[in-house]
Amino acid sequence: MKWTWVFVAVLLSFGGLSLGKESLDFPEYDGKDRVHDLNAKNYKSVMKKYDVMVVYYHDHPGSSRVAQKQFEIEELALELVAQVLDEFDDEDIGVGLIDAKHDKAVAKKLGLDESDSIFIFTEDEVIEYDGELAADTIVEFIYDVLEDPVEIIDNSKELKGFENIEEDIKLVGYFKSHKSEHFEAFADAAEEFHPHIKFFATFNPKVAKALELKLNEVDFYEPFMDDPVVIPGKPYSEDELVKFIEDNDRPTLRKLQPHNMYEIWDDDVDGEHIIAFAEEADPDGFEFLEILKQVAEDNTDNPDLSIVWIDPDDFPLLLPHWEKTFGIDLSSPQIGVVDADDADSVWMDMDDGEDLPSVDELEDWIEDALAVHHMDVFYDDEI
Amino acid sequence: MKWTWVFVAVLLSFGGLSLGKESLDFPEYDGKDRVHDLNAKNYKSVMKKYDVMVVYYHDHPGSSRVAQKQFEIEELALELVAQVLDEFDDEDIGVGLIDAKHDKAVAKKLGLDESDSIFIFTEDEVIEYDGELAADTIVEFIYDVLEDPVEIIDNSKELKGFENIEEDIKLVGYFKSHKSEHFEAFADAAEEFHPHIKFFATFNPKVAKALELKLNEVDFYEPFMDDPVVIPGKPYSEDELVKFIEDNDRPTLRKLQPHNMYEIWDDDVDGEHIIAFAEEADPDGFEFLEILKQVAEDNTDNPDLSIVWIDPDDFPLLLPHWEKTFGIDLSSPQIGVVDADDADSVWMDMDDGEDLPSVDELEDWIEDALAVHHMDVFYDDEI
Repeated sequence: MKWTWVFVAVLLSFGGLSLGKESLDFPEYDGKDRVHDLNAKNYKSVMKKYDVMVVYYHDHPGSSRVAQKQFEIEELALELVAQVLDEFDDEDIGVGLIDAKHDKAVAKKLGLDESDSIFIFTEDEVIEYDGELAADTIVEFIYDVLEDPVEIIDNSKELKGFENIEEDIKLVGYFKSHKSEHFEAFADAAEEFHPHIKFFATFNPKVAKALELKLNEVDFYEPFMDDPVVIPGKPYSEDELVKFIEDNDRPTLRKLQPHNMYEIWDDDVDGEHIIAFAEEADPDGFEFLEILKQVAEDNTDNPDLSIVWIDPDDFPLLLPHWEKTFGIDLSSPQIGVVDADDADSVWMDMDDGEDLPSVDELEDWIEDALAVHHMDVFYDDEI
Repeated sequence: MKWTWVFVAVLLSFGGLSLGKESLDFPEYDGKDRVHDLNAKNYKSVMKKYDVMVVYYHDHPGSSRVAQKQFEIEELALELVAQVLDEFDDEDIGVGLIDAKHDKAVAKKLGLDESDSIFIFTEDEVIEYDGELAADTIVEFIYDVLEDPVEIIDNSKELKGFENIEEDIKLVGYFKSHKSEHFEAFADAAEEFHPHIKFFATFNPKVAKALELKLNEVDFYEPFMDDPVVIPGKPYSEDELVKFIEDNDRPTLRKLQPHNMYEIWDDDVDGEHIIAFAEEADPDGFEFLEILKQVAEDNTDNPDLSIVWIDPDDFPLLLPHWEKTFGIDLSSPQIGVVDADDADSVWMDMDDGEDLPSVDELEDWIEDALAVHHMDVFYDDEI
């Protein structure tokens, strides 16, 4: 058996892998250092060279060995990102670093205020990446960035594919053609949220009929909701679409994913998150997820309710840490209220998933837990 | 925004992460070296200490800087695996290394012949791990190893969860109770294939009725097949079940996943693989996958047909390499015949997914491609 793996890949900088099967072989490192140190002198010329520029605006690394080492590893991760994207034919993609201590001015000129973040500069947008600093997750996000902001649905199978997407916010509109001014407004709005929110359009009356869409109408789907909201006031200007989406971009149920984990974590409700752990591939987890979706559908109009679903399978390295931090067993489904800052939490008693709650029981528990938690955080310890 | 990520985690050995949000924070490294170098003197005493032992039986690292560095990284990956599993309460899990040059004898005593492989020793089984040497993938595989080989289905929601599992081979049996000798034979067979093949059982007549299962009957499901095969000759002995599964463990359609990628790649058909690239999250990819599943259902009895489905989303770092190696564009679905050794390949012309083939067209193409490819590999270049 031969090896390859995500973070050996990162250290390709030290040489290729001995992988017998050509087709699964990672590219050998070619010795190039690809990540640019951007500064006042070079940033314009460097960024002009690329169609897309990935910029890590990082805090100045501390002097401790730990801090130095950590930054070195971050650089290596980005070297791998640069190397993999360099092989990618479609676009010229560059990777650069900006030091928040030495080159704050450069960041300012580029319109970056928040440091310790990755920004992706495309022809007409600056997109913030707020997920794991893992080469594979970043690279995949950039593939998404490179795709068209609006995907066209032209037949019933593609429609099934559209219906199959349930984990992200998605919109779909019906327009006369690519040339329609209303489609253009829709496409411009799409660029504002791409690739975080998925935009679809159809020019096919049959598909529109199946979606019950009138001409120039746009439906907005929350994650995990079968029924969309029809955006009122068609036809819409770009601004009207943008405003509606911004007013509705905190879903009742949303999935924590490596590429959006910090974005979601920072978007707490009154300093708290309702966290539900459910392993979709496990029958109990699947069952609990079905209950969660029902709770979400029943409460989709409640602005104060936003449940964060975490599938432990997506974060195997955090699982034991979560079990310790929260004092729960993640081999069965769990739901709790977690303080976003100090991880202080209350969890529902579910007898190890033997007997999962009904939709009503779950709704009652959430109400009570939020009330208790608000009343007195110290009280948690006695629960 | 704060950072954490899979392979910074690996280098936790150099210190913890600066993650503001407690709850998403990786554990800080405690300075312990946990990975044991196993040798003739210590292996018995070390392995006695743990309920589960993860052993990397590795080739002796070469003397070049590249080889040394690569091995060092592999060790770090396993240190992270050990650290994460150390936090895991349920079982004592150890990690060890055996050098194929210095300690071949130890490996022999443990019954390991193939080096460059990871073996997981549990109380009663030795399980080979044949996937990526990535800490998160290994850790997740070990969680699966620790689960019961047989999962019990007790209600309709859990049944839905069972039906929802389509990417793995799964079996389900109906038995009187845990104490039934026929259930015991089923459970013993499950241990032979755990966790690679999923075993389910029910003691609930209602669930059995929904599955159309008679008492002591076991159904075998290929991946992506709605209809199971009833294993003939119930009630079965453990050996009868094992033999049937071994005779049927190469599905007509199977998914390449990080935890099984080398296992699948090594299991080629006449030195070749039929590879289908389809991104499930993309409407075109979803549509093509539906066609593939239909082809698989139509040909499930053809022993020479085994299509390997790769979702590019699962292997972002390999995508540009695959596009170069195979000369294809993976932004749309692709299917081809690939030589398992030299990656020589033929691909179907699909006009960038504009116009996907029908089930019949796809079946005809596969037949022809296999024929041509067998006839003359050089001929590929002219296709």
